[in-house]
Amino acid sequence: MPALDELPEDVRARIEQVGEKTGFVPNIFLALARRPAEFRAFLAYHDALMDKVTPGLDKADREMIVVATSAANDCTYCVVAHGGILRVRARDPLIADQVATNYRHADITARQRAMLDFALRVATESATVSDEHLAELAQYGFDTDDVWDMGAITALFAQSNRMAHLMALRPNPELHLLDRVPGDPVG
Amino acid sequence: MPALDELPEDVRARIEQVGEKTGFVPNIFLALARRPAEFRAFLAYHDALMDKVTPGLDKADREMIVVATSAANDCTYCVVAHGGILRVRARDPLIADQVATNYRHADITARQRAMLDFALRVATESATVSDEHLAELAQYGFDTDDVWDMGAITALFAQSNRMAHLMALRPNPELHLLDRVPGDPVG
Amino acid sequence: MPALDELPEDVRARIEQVGEKTGFVPNIFLALARRPAEFRAFLAYHDALMDKVTPGLDKADREMIVVATSAANDCTYCVVAHGGILRVRARDPLIADQVATNYRHADITARQRAMLDFALRVATESATVSDEHLAELAQYGFDTDDVWDMGAITALFAQSNRMAHLMALRPNPELHLLDRVPGDPVG
Amino acid sequence: MPALDELPEDVRARIEQVGEKTGFVPNIFLALARRPAEFRAFLAYHDALMDKVTPGLDKADREMIVVATSAANDCTYCVVAHGGILRVRARDPLIADQVATNYRHADITARQRAMLDFALRVATESATVSDEHLAELAQYGFDTDDVWDMGAITALFAQSNRMAHLMALRPNPELHLLDRVPGDPVG
Amino acid sequence: MPALDELPEDVRARIEQVGEKTGFVPNIFLALARRPAEFRAFLAYHDALMDKVTPGLDKADREMIVVATSAANDCTYCVVAHGGILRVRARDPLIADQVATNYRHADITARQRAMLDFALRVATESATVSDEHLAELAQYGFDTDDVWDMGAITALFAQSNRMAHLMALRPNPELHLLDRVPGDPVG
Amino acid sequence: MPALDELPEDVRARIEQVGEKTGFVPNIFLALARRPAEFRAFLAYHDALMDKVTPGLDKADREMIVVATSAANDCTYCVVAHGGILRVRARDPLIADQVATNYRHADITARQRAMLDFALRVATESATVSDEHLAELAQYGFDTDDVWDMGAITALFAQSNRMAHLMALRPNPELHLLDRVPGDPVG
Repeated sequence: MPALDELPEDVRARIEQVGEKTGFVPNIFLALARRPAEFRAFLAYHDALMDKVTPGLDKADREMIVVATSAANDCTYCVVAHGGILRVRARDPLIADQVATNYRHADITARQRAMLDFALRVATESATVSDEHLAELAQYGFDTDDVWDMGAITALFAQSNRMAHLMALRPNPELHLLDRVPGDPVG
Repeated sequence: MPALDELPEDVRARIEQVGEKTGFVPNIFLALARRPAEFRAFLAYHDALMDKVTPGLDKADREMIVVATSAANDCTYCVVAHGGILRVRARDPLIADQVATNYRHADITARQRAMLDFALRVATESATVSDEHLAELAQYGFDTDDVWDMGAITALFAQSNRMAHLMALRPNPELHLLDRVPGDPVG
Repeated sequence: MPALDELPEDVRARIEQVGEKTGFVPNIFLALARRPAEFRAFLAYHDALMDKVTPGLDKADREMIVVATSAANDCTYCVVAHGGILRVRARDPLIADQVATNYRHADITARQRAMLDFALRVATESATVSDEHLAELAQYGFDTDDVWDMGAITALFAQSNRMAHLMALRPNPELHLLDRVPGDPVG
Repeated sequence: MPALDELPEDVRARIEQVGEKTGFVPNIFLALARRPAEFRAFLAYHDALMDKVTPGLDKADREMIVVATSAANDCTYCVVAHGGILRVRARDPLIADQVATNYRHADITARQRAMLDFALRVATESATVSDEHLAELAQYGFDTDDVWDMGAITALFAQSNRMAHLMALRPNPELHLLDRVPGDPVG
Repeated sequence: MPALDELPEDVRARIEQVGEKTGFVPNIFLALARRPAEFRAFLAYHDALMDKVTPGLDKADREMIVVATSAANDCTYCVVAHGGILRVRARDPLIADQVATNYRHADITARQRAMLDFALRVATESATVSDEHLAELAQYGFDTDDVWDMGAITALFAQSNRMAHLMALRPNPELHLLDRVPGDPVG
Repeated sequence: MPALDELPEDVRARIEQVGEKTGFVPNIFLALARRPAEFRAFLAYHDALMDKVTPGLDKADREMIVVATSAANDCTYCVVAHGGILRVRARDPLIADQVATNYRHADITARQRAMLDFALRVATESATVSDEHLAELAQYGFDTDDVWDMGAITALFAQSNRMAHLMALRPNPELHLLDRVPGDPVG
């Protein structure tokens, strides 16, 4: 991994900002910084999809999609890191482990189940997506923009799961613990 | 789930014993107690394979096999429960999440990697097991009894993963936290 | 395989009993006897599920589940041995070969087809079992105990198929012929 | 199925000939006769590949390929019918059940194992066939014509397995018993 | 490949005939001619199924089945050659690429979509064909002979895809271009 | 799709630029423009990986990775569009169809075959990437940056294949013809 002071100014600033906010720098930031142009593009894409709340999808829903699809791809970094963020967003210490292992038996709503069924289809057999699946989602009130968001989040993490595997990226120990213990100052 | 005082004496005694030792009764015990004969048979098989240390396989190795193969079967109960026990046995707060998501990239020895490769073969395509796989294991010092243990642990959890799915069994909240936090009184 | 007179008394008695009843000792008994505690646990589990007739499932139904799911696991020992027992139980010389190769095109009732569809789901993708499958079974009159039996038989043979593969267990020649020929004294 | 006397002369003659030789008319003949041109083409292809002995492949080897690949396709008719013929050709009452369920654990030579590994590759993932597989076969003495025969037999039964499934074709009861019992007049 | 003047008269005549009609000899003809009996049987089967127009299936429908199922088998020769013929038959320069990559998103009718769904089932999981699929086809007006044709075309190309892979057969350059360019004299 | 004059200035400029250079606007540009921030992020990522020549990977190699992995994902838009660009880059009218259908039998070098084997692994089973695969690539002279490029291109198109499926995106007719005909003014 590159040294912080060898990085372009904007890349370094982003890394320092996340370190200050979170208390540590998640490994993905330093790993991607080796290629500044790709670092910027990935984070721009990420922010456009994940730093957003819409009437159809709150931040916990978005993280749930990341955890379920990253688990289908067996990606340790993304499951642990976004599992931690999901616990924070959902204020639920158990949900991430449930969604990561078998979302079909997790404590989620029928609407979230439909959302994850669709995300898993995009993650693992996207060529089969058809109008009937969009119609099913519409029954739960998901509109065209919601479908785009679900699909695009899944697609972006299809990309980043593969990058994490390529680098055999290991999660920071702190990520395993984010908001696991109620009242714990870590998360 | 049946009430404790409606259970046969030996079944109730076993459940009370585990509750005293662990501080809570893992849900699998009450779920299986609905059928006392099957409860006794499962625990007899479990104890014969898991309550044992041999020169070839310590208790952490045995739990690692359970976690990796239960993850291949997407079994939330077994991954969370035995993930907790693995953290206790291995004295390592990170190993269970790593093995559960992608054991190929986990912090394990080459010998443990060979052990898990074999266990996964037995879990997912056991018809292909052949002499060449036993020869590979022998190179790491695994003998005939070690191979039987690895295969039999995998086979027993092939059974219990399916039972857990059948009952949509949910892990107790305490199991998610076993030995996650160093110095934590939970584990 | 161990010599009979080196085995614990109860193990030897069980083996002699089956030999007297059947006319030969099926290879699985001697193979498992190498580990008496596991031998006892397996047979206790087996007897609890297979030596039983309920209003929902007769003995032929139970054997049919074993044959269909063992075939999905490509287990020669279990397909041949339980195929033979299925011919005996169903008094039908053709049913075992049909169920072993493609149960979807076998001469079975719609109720048995639903039973085998469920058993195959538990055998090959148990994480997907959900309430809708239980509802489908209820339409054929299967109650909660029937579902437990179907799932538990499938789960137990998921275990024993893997053990048979681990030992590359070969069926006794007599098992191939059990009740194949009408009026034949073999079966 | 069409009546015999409505069939073209050559088709009827072929059916009567097989009936006289075997003692019954295997169902595939009447099923295919519905389309005489396809009947003739299939049997011409079949005879060119199966009615032949070469230094590299005897008739039992050819039937073994049919049984193993038809089993991979879950084709009851072809597994039962060609399993019967395999017992006749190999003069072995057990070999067909072994090859049909898991050829990897069957009593066959290393050369036959290599032959079946290749046939299964052609049956289930033919796009991956490459020079390295032909080199492996050459080590067992298989020449170019042997490889063509193995591949072509597998390819022809890829075709006929699908036709049998399309028609849900059931094997004649006699086929289940061909040469099962030593000294039995059936086979 | 054999020299033309060493081939039996009828084989040579067929090859010269196709060369005169098409302007070049597609490589499959010379490749199969190495075995005249198989050459004749394959072409007899091919002509019986492909050189035919019925009320249920026109020639473009038949080629569409070949392209979609050959694509599922990753067969370069058949996808390129029959893709070219499909462009000719359908008078559509885009349809072959669409059907070869993802027929679910191609510009085809709902009836053709049902036809291809069935053909793909026969190509990739024929053991699951059942009455419910025939009932679905009947809703689009497909009768018993249409279903036989769809299934038999798929089955025949299951055979020829495997032969093409066995020979690593390369398409003639001309086949890539057949009727790609409107008004182009090539097609 | 949005009207050009409703788009942000930089998005519109990029679209007009590609239209002038290529002679038409590939559909992906207008489809993504519906979300300007995502449009910018995707193209920034794309340009960082595809608009580049290194000693290890030329532009045709990069396109070959896109075509082979997009074909594994059954993505019509990406296979047709990047198939066209591959023909242009490789100055070979046949290579795209070969790589799209079965790259194992395509006219490529052993080095390109190793590159595509690795890319396909990242596309379809990235969790299994391990040091042994990197060692194999090193034997062909691929260094760490080459491996990053191969993996990152595959990962980016894992993302964009899923977006194209989500939108059921159809390729422009011109893309099917790019450089198909030698001397053709289209390409």
